[in-house]
Amino acid sequence: MTLMEKARNGKTDTIMEEVARQEGVEVEFIRKGLAEGTIVIPYNTRHKNLKPKAIGEGLTTKINANIGTSEDYSDIEVELEKLRVAINNGADAVMDLSTGFRITETRKAIIKNSSVPVGTVPIYQVAVETLQAGKAIVEMTVEDIFNVIIEQAEDGVDFITVHCGLTRAGIEHLKREGRITGITSRGGSFLTAWMKHNNRENPLYEYFDRLLEIAYQYNLTLSLGDGLRPGCLADATDRGQIHELLVLGELVDRAREAGVQTMVEGPGHVPFNQIKTNIKIEKELCKGAPFYVLGPLVTDISPGYDHITAAIGGTMAATAGADFLCYVTPAEHLGLPTVEDVKEGVIASKIAAHAADVARGNPLALARDKEMARARKNLDWESQIKLSLAPEKARKARKERNTRERDVCAMCGQYCALKIAEEALN
Amino acid sequence: MTLMEKARNGKTDTIMEEVARQEGVEVEFIRKGLAEGTIVIPYNTRHKNLKPKAIGEGLTTKINANIGTSEDYSDIEVELEKLRVAINNGADAVMDLSTGFRITETRKAIIKNSSVPVGTVPIYQVAVETLQAGKAIVEMTVEDIFNVIIEQAEDGVDFITVHCGLTRAGIEHLKREGRITGITSRGGSFLTAWMKHNNRENPLYEYFDRLLEIAYQYNLTLSLGDGLRPGCLADATDRGQIHELLVLGELVDRAREAGVQTMVEGPGHVPFNQIKTNIKIEKELCKGAPFYVLGPLVTDISPGYDHITAAIGGTMAATAGADFLCYVTPAEHLGLPTVEDVKEGVIASKIAAHAADVARGNPLALARDKEMARARKNLDWESQIKLSLAPEKARKARKERNTRERDVCAMCGQYCALKIAEEALN
Repeated sequence: MTLMEKARNGKTDTIMEEVARQEGVEVEFIRKGLAEGTIVIPYNTRHKNLKPKAIGEGLTTKINANIGTSEDYSDIEVELEKLRVAINNGADAVMDLSTGFRITETRKAIIKNSSVPVGTVPIYQVAVETLQAGKAIVEMTVEDIFNVIIEQAEDGVDFITVHCGLTRAGIEHLKREGRITGITSRGGSFLTAWMKHNNRENPLYEYFDRLLEIAYQYNLTLSLGDGLRPGCLADATDRGQIHELLVLGELVDRAREAGVQTMVEGPGHVPFNQIKTNIKIEKELCKGAPFYVLGPLVTDISPGYDHITAAIGGTMAATAGADFLCYVTPAEHLGLPTVEDVKEGVIASKIAAHAADVARGNPLALARDKEMARARKNLDWESQIKLSLAPEKARKARKERNTRERDVCAMCGQYCALKIAEEALN
Repeated sequence: MTLMEKARNGKTDTIMEEVARQEGVEVEFIRKGLAEGTIVIPYNTRHKNLKPKAIGEGLTTKINANIGTSEDYSDIEVELEKLRVAINNGADAVMDLSTGFRITETRKAIIKNSSVPVGTVPIYQVAVETLQAGKAIVEMTVEDIFNVIIEQAEDGVDFITVHCGLTRAGIEHLKREGRITGITSRGGSFLTAWMKHNNRENPLYEYFDRLLEIAYQYNLTLSLGDGLRPGCLADATDRGQIHELLVLGELVDRAREAGVQTMVEGPGHVPFNQIKTNIKIEKELCKGAPFYVLGPLVTDISPGYDHITAAIGGTMAATAGADFLCYVTPAEHLGLPTVEDVKEGVIASKIAAHAADVARGNPLALARDKEMARARKNLDWESQIKLSLAPEKARKARKERNTRERDVCAMCGQYCALKIAEEALN
């Protein structure tokens, strides 16, 4: 039985209890959300030592860190280090997006070492193995795709990105309107090329029922990918993107009917003033399915600093109702992230998630900021460091600059407003 | 004649022409904004080699970088390096907030070397010199304050922060409601202590007409400071803060009557969901006076990363109508920023300003993102680097990771979606 089915049968279990504790909500709230599909808990029982995390309406905002090898950087140990750094800095989930050598071995190692849910994009493996077999990507077969999905589910993957809503009709809308950056989703580009070459519909759409059967069997959470997500601000919220979302909404209905947990993926590059609309339209078209957004990036011109750009968009998105933020690292648009990039990306995303939780009035989030405010007022530096989202950096900066070891800081020194005002106000 | 008076007399000059060129607007638009007080151009003719910048309604968002010494770090050369780094990375103005040794010498050196408007908080110098004279800060005299303001105007300072709206009545509102962090504005704390000790009203409020006379004489732009700005999220938008803003609105009226350019300063620490309200209430109470905000910081718990926290708040603020963003560096709440901190702070703030300009539909901002999108689509790396807000970092990351010198990047390699889709869509 899937978690969704169990919840619909009015049953709770230790997984639901655990996430209820994390969130400070009643387990019934979790059960109801799971039953209605507004909450998902990516959880594959084959993934050992997994600490469950819930994503969705009424919960704290979760963040995901993409890791994984590429052709040019294909070291499993480095990816495991990224995994550790991501989790230590607060990632709620990771995705293994490997396209390098030893792709299966990499995935197994990541799942084995991850205490948080692990997601993948199975079509990457299909593409890599098709090329390795000396064929072109467009020559992958429908069987290849489903075989890899089953293989990954067997390995213990908790959620998979599947671009099921990318259809021939959607591509026609995109082509008629025109775009600057075309398609920037890798999965989206593979499938588009496949559809054109084979003159067939997207197999993940055509055989969606088969996908649902597999997902049901493994309690796999489907993350319905946005193959036509905009790759620049000018392409945002266009007809190709919205057509795909409309199809995804229909697929959410079908997945729910089949008792399969489902979330929906969203952009991407979106001007700040269009983010709220993007969230609201997803929530409407997909009937409250958890929304998993990449960034969004609020400008195209900050390579090297896209973790900041994404944190800006992510805060707006989550405040407006997005449930799950995919981090972006400083390496975005430039290359595969390093371990350090992963760390900076996670922290930036965590700031966005927390700021949004505060804006949404989450009691746990509000309490933490209040505690920090009190520590600050009391010039209690040890508590300030402990309460911070990135204690390591805060401690280092405090230590390096506070050479005279005073209770004030090296910016204001004896002109510390808090101290001066304390006396004056009493 | 001040720029405001000139504009009211229907006259334009080379300063107005220059900023109109920068903004891509008609000079008449600038003249009208100056005359009405919705635009300011901080410009002291004693500041040689100053490139004018306009701040206000209908213009691109400007950013300010705070530099200056402290007791613990008092090296003029380091501050001049911060100035260079700030300007090179896009700061539209700097404020010299020095409280270290040789305060006058530092200011003169900064003004001499700055091509952008320079602001100060004169009461810092008064406090430092009062302590140096062996007295307590609360023993500063009204004459001391006005003498320093005149001295700084003579030196060529373009705008000064003066906490004129902080009154005894405001402090009573603050005390009755209660606050966690009390007062975090240094100027605000000095004046509050002074008022209590001397049992008198804030001299910058009481003798506001005298201040206006000086400002008029030197075409000094007044930046009406918010001495009661919140120091944590829990204190945001409280009665102390709003009372001060209400008084500032009245003072804006008086300044405009006197032909003195005026902007208004705002918070500070503000939950993301309260930022828009803060901007709208300022625009109402202060009749469209340019709004200069610090951050705002959307969470209290990210010391070490407050440049990101401020970029999130700054984007929201500027999108909602704030005109001028004061940067925050990674060193905020920890110590005096280093040169590297200044750089990171300026870039983060620049991202916020630009993202907001895009959201507000500024044609110059939109065009730049479109150009980047085209360069990205064409895998034109040199143009991507040139168009980026921080070319240096983008170039370094691209070079370091792209060891095989390919036209694609080291993340996707041969799986580049742009390339694959390009063929499939044509």
